Amino acid sequence: MKENTMIAEQNRGIVRIPNPPTIRAWASVVGKKEHDGPLGGDFDLHAEDDRFGMDTWEKAESEMQRLALGMLMKKSGCREEDIGAIFAGDLLNQCTGSSFGLLDAKIPYFGLYGACSTMAEGLMLASLLVGGGYFSKAAAVCSSHFCSAERQFRFPIEYGGQRTPTAQWTVTGAGSVLLSSDGCGPYVTEVLPGISVQMGITDAANMGAAMAPAAVDTLSRYFASSGVSPDEFDLIVTGDLGQVGHDITSDLLLSMGYDVRRVYNDCGLLIYSSESQDMHAGGSGCGCSATVLCGHILKRFANGQYKNMLFVGTGALMSPTSVQQGLPIAGIAHLVRISAEKPTEMGGGNA
Amino acid sequence: MKENTMIAEQNRGIVRIPNPPTIRAWASVVGKKEHDGPLGGDFDLHAEDDRFGMDTWEKAESEMQRLALGMLMKKSGCREEDIGAIFAGDLLNQCTGSSFGLLDAKIPYFGLYGACSTMAEGLMLASLLVGGGYFSKAAAVCSSHFCSAERQFRFPIEYGGQRTPTAQWTVTGAGSVLLSSDGCGPYVTEVLPGISVQMGITDAANMGAAMAPAAVDTLSRYFASSGVSPDEFDLIVTGDLGQVGHDITSDLLLSMGYDVRRVYNDCGLLIYSSESQDMHAGGSGCGCSATVLCGHILKRFANGQYKNMLFVGTGALMSPTSVQQGLPIAGIAHLVRISAEKPTEMGGGNA
Repeated sequence: MKENTMIAEQNRGIVRIPNPPTIRAWASVVGKKEHDGPLGGDFDLHAEDDRFGMDTWEKAESEMQRLALGMLMKKSGCREEDIGAIFAGDLLNQCTGSSFGLLDAKIPYFGLYGACSTMAEGLMLASLLVGGGYFSKAAAVCSSHFCSAERQFRFPIEYGGQRTPTAQWTVTGAGSVLLSSDGCGPYVTEVLPGISVQMGITDAANMGAAMAPAAVDTLSRYFASSGVSPDEFDLIVTGDLGQVGHDITSDLLLSMGYDVRRVYNDCGLLIYSSESQDMHAGGSGCGCSATVLCGHILKRFANGQYKNMLFVGTGALMSPTSVQQGLPIAGIAHLVRISAEKPTEMGGGNA
Repeated sequence: MKENTMIAEQNRGIVRIPNPPTIRAWASVVGKKEHDGPLGGDFDLHAEDDRFGMDTWEKAESEMQRLALGMLMKKSGCREEDIGAIFAGDLLNQCTGSSFGLLDAKIPYFGLYGACSTMAEGLMLASLLVGGGYFSKAAAVCSSHFCSAERQFRFPIEYGGQRTPTAQWTVTGAGSVLLSSDGCGPYVTEVLPGISVQMGITDAANMGAAMAPAAVDTLSRYFASSGVSPDEFDLIVTGDLGQVGHDITSDLLLSMGYDVRRVYNDCGLLIYSSESQDMHAGGSGCGCSATVLCGHILKRFANGQYKNMLFVGTGALMSPTSVQQGLPIAGIAHLVRISAEKPTEMGGGNA
């Protein structure tokens, strides 16, 4: 398998949504560590023991998705029959966190696997289908759980394995958003779906380095195609690159002429305290970008602090089997532009 | 977790595509057993040893996806940069069959997990996004491989375990379709996304029974909402219910007043010979409906034999972990209507 070269030749256009949907409601559910972190006050619900009343970690993860959807419907006043489709995914084998968590909701269900980029992937698809007039409302939900992820991807938690400095901590949390054809913002105005990029990283304890090239690829394509400067945004945030991937992304973009340093952050750096919580390189998992978006970020659109941002979900496309078989880890990064105002002029066509 | 009751109350509408996209090209790649079966002559490529030149079954599955996409591009004359998005999935943990198989293609990538319904899910999303004007072309690809599935979901193949009569055989194969905004058909005119349904089946060797209620739910909602009689179709085909699920579906629909018996078949019954190949209840896996659609069925649209059909991808939403933890197996069924002619009058709105 040959390594992909990075694609920044503008050969894939930004998809502009002619009738941008409103993010009508959002909800977040987290575990104890996430609640104890610097964003703790931004989340809707948390559990003190990460079990959410369940007898397995997998059921606890599903329960978080159920709670995140329930909270979303409560906040928006929507009933199940109002929601045309739900896009959902997680990191568990065969995505059972989502399929069991949302089983009782009688809503048409699209299962996704975007690794840790799933919230951005679901947000993209829900926005495109609502914007295209197919549904008046659609939801996106995703989750991760530290304990279900550890035993599936690494070691049983009882083993107490030592973690490397580049390792990240899987966020225990679920986030949900509701897209609606009516409403007064914030709007999803543009999306740029990611292209898989792999640069030869084989260390499964260094996902940040594996995913950073994909973030750089997507962001550089966005800046090159749109002609928009990074400084025009209040925030550019990647999903879960952690400290290592954040720094690689910032440096590589700078070397390409895009200085994002003033506005760039990573959900994996925001969610835990690097001083009081020793999480090594930062947070990761589908729940990382999902809860930071659906807790912290969208609240700041509601209070007027943010007006214009790029949300870049990042995922590592690998499995324990692929790593054991010596395959390199590819990354993908899906970009969603969220704006408080509807664009007055929607120039350019779609890809 | 309470059992879902079957939903046939028309509370979710059929999504009609105002500008139906054309299925511009299709391709299929299969293993030896599938090539030896009754549809053998319909497939584009096959390997005599199911390895496709690779040293692991997982890499062989990825190679089938790579070949299916390559054949699709060759047949359609499209280059990578012509394709706005690719929707792909498979049954492997973290969907690595797709992510590694399509890694070299520099095409925006949406990862899906719809279990064995993935071809229908990808076809739906590609059709909706091309029909919505977001992309001029989009592709859907998916695969399964008997040997990678057996060792992941059941036993290593070297174990030689006895199979029960209700067990199905995972198809070794990959299929791909290209949707295009221009072309003269066959068209994807309507889709009906599935709702998860579980009726308490916990036997992982009886997937047909677990998925049949979802097929019945989707088909009965379709007939009730559209007012179209089953006899108006040349073919109604489910993905991989096998003999057990096929008979349950046919009987339950009849009890609800929908007699599909004249036109109803299942890809899992079509792909293998029940006389000369002992595959127990029939074929299954993402590759089952994908190869039957992209080999057998679409060829018969091209030669004029079929003019109007319902393709219903069926998936079982479970994992070995969920089965070990005693959770029941839910099913989902996504419906896609394919017609040789563009509808002259597109009545009704979207959901």
